[in-house]
Amino acid sequence: MINLSCPLPRPAKDRILLAHGGGGRLTNQLIEDVFLPAFSNAALNSRHDGALLSAGGARLAMTTDTYVVQPLIFPGGTIGDLAVNGTVNDLAMCGATAVALSAGFVLEEGLAMETLQTVVASMRDAALVANVPIVTGDTKVVDKGKGDGVFINTTGIGLVVAPTSIGPERIRAGDSLIVSGDLGSHGIAILSVRDGLEFEGPVLSDTACLWPSVNALFEAGIDVHCLRDLTRGGLSSALNEIATVAGVRITIDEALVPISDVVRGACEMLGLDPLYVANEGRFAVFVAEEDVDRALDVMRGQTVSAGALRVGTVYERASGIVTVRSRIGGNRVLDMLSGEQLPRIC
Amino acid sequence: MINLSCPLPRPAKDRILLAHGGGGRLTNQLIEDVFLPAFSNAALNSRHDGALLSAGGARLAMTTDTYVVQPLIFPGGTIGDLAVNGTVNDLAMCGATAVALSAGFVLEEGLAMETLQTVVASMRDAALVANVPIVTGDTKVVDKGKGDGVFINTTGIGLVVAPTSIGPERIRAGDSLIVSGDLGSHGIAILSVRDGLEFEGPVLSDTACLWPSVNALFEAGIDVHCLRDLTRGGLSSALNEIATVAGVRITIDEALVPISDVVRGACEMLGLDPLYVANEGRFAVFVAEEDVDRALDVMRGQTVSAGALRVGTVYERASGIVTVRSRIGGNRVLDMLSGEQLPRIC
Repeated sequence: MINLSCPLPRPAKDRILLAHGGGGRLTNQLIEDVFLPAFSNAALNSRHDGALLSAGGARLAMTTDTYVVQPLIFPGGTIGDLAVNGTVNDLAMCGATAVALSAGFVLEEGLAMETLQTVVASMRDAALVANVPIVTGDTKVVDKGKGDGVFINTTGIGLVVAPTSIGPERIRAGDSLIVSGDLGSHGIAILSVRDGLEFEGPVLSDTACLWPSVNALFEAGIDVHCLRDLTRGGLSSALNEIATVAGVRITIDEALVPISDVVRGACEMLGLDPLYVANEGRFAVFVAEEDVDRALDVMRGQTVSAGALRVGTVYERASGIVTVRSRIGGNRVLDMLSGEQLPRIC
Repeated sequence: MINLSCPLPRPAKDRILLAHGGGGRLTNQLIEDVFLPAFSNAALNSRHDGALLSAGGARLAMTTDTYVVQPLIFPGGTIGDLAVNGTVNDLAMCGATAVALSAGFVLEEGLAMETLQTVVASMRDAALVANVPIVTGDTKVVDKGKGDGVFINTTGIGLVVAPTSIGPERIRAGDSLIVSGDLGSHGIAILSVRDGLEFEGPVLSDTACLWPSVNALFEAGIDVHCLRDLTRGGLSSALNEIATVAGVRITIDEALVPISDVVRGACEMLGLDPLYVANEGRFAVFVAEEDVDRALDVMRGQTVSAGALRVGTVYERASGIVTVRSRIGGNRVLDMLSGEQLPRIC
């Protein structure tokens, strides 16, 4: 007989869990419980992809990311591409063009020099495409068994070129939500090599530099309300964060969300919801209803966002924060990622 | 009988060794063989502690460091103090006052939340002392056994306030070399807890913010030629790097170099040369001979550099790059650190 008074095992609150790094609920808790109370300041509290600051009269953005993806080399990219594109993209999401990157390496003793050279070459190539110099760096080596090949931190400084402020606080009921292309390829590409799974076809990571698409929106004079890249936690975590800060409800139309057949098939096989799967070259754009067609035209003119589609609408906050109108009718709440779908995705 | 034709074991060139992270010869080789050819640009090639750049008309400095010190908490500090002070100090060495820091954490699954909170609290305190906000951050979690508690990357943006350029290229024959205080405490403090050694007395890490001392030199109108903090590889590696770039010879007078009795005793016991031991709150200053007394007065007026002393002189390059005039007379060449005295010192 089961002793019902025996408590169910619960994740210990006094230890770090993998899900604390998943970009979902536990990551948010860690930020709110540990980091924000200690470091509280206006830039950090805004909870944006990067911080806006002023230095010597210049309007700058600053953002940081450490990359711990496994494996280091995967279909469509390496940890090096991710490290450059991810940070350049976070600056882009602040409306800023990348001016300089730093690169900090933690190498594990015994790492093959050839692997390091492959990673460094892909960083060089990604930096050339993004037209940003890597101006300063640091290398540390940890004992074998105390690291995992290579971890890379990239931090970026950008110059804000967005003509107006960009952020969740500018989102209004009636705004349209655009996503820049099909979702889930990065997460599925990593899974395919990590677990040796075979899908209906090859899946390449979508890692790419998003700045050309963001810049094209500015140059076309589109009044962009908010931008967000759809990395850890996928579309659903990004929309939950935005809706919380903006105080609105966002409803997406499941039938409109672009997902390739092979990613859809892989997600069905693995029991994953593609709305939670990570992307490294996709972003969400919020614009007023009257700007949506023009924004789509501009985005489709850029390779990196050729598959842009309008997928949702912003409403006044009522019940629920992010909801999905499903293919078969009916609505469901799309919650923030609770556990960890796939650790070390970026 | 020993077979003399059998080659001696050599470090494999195709693998990363701990000494690649030691700040000495192998670190320099890695930078020259792998990183510089890939990322080559003017800022990076200058091989300074940080990069100087211009953004939106502002004269900025940018610098990055990842901290992997073990143990995480040691006499006189934590990895958190180091992470803030180290990056603020690298900006100071560029003649820049810190404007903003980023913080990127790599946490190991299972890390005690209490340890993280201790580390974060010491970062907060160090940031308050240095008067710099931590404006943006990132947290990743790696599987147990793939990290080592906490690694922290801090990257800093600074505003250059130095009235003239600062760097090895400004050093001239006849310049004096000042060090800001007694050397070796950080390295010995780490050793004392890591290996459970007992010395004649307690040794605390010297981790501290150097900006007040640097700023006082600028405010006093001292024409500072070059600044360098004496971290990994200690005084000798810093002087070797500087002398190489400057094309000069630097001679230090061993009897003048300040080293506390307990550090000297510990070094003798362990067979270490204190000139190679790491510091986290000490720096070297090069000024013209006629400015040296005034610079010493100014530095001694600041707590962090109260023990400043003139320890050497710059000469035209002849034979040798960095030499030591020893206590018993005679000269020896002070080479760059070849292996790794103490891994994971910062």
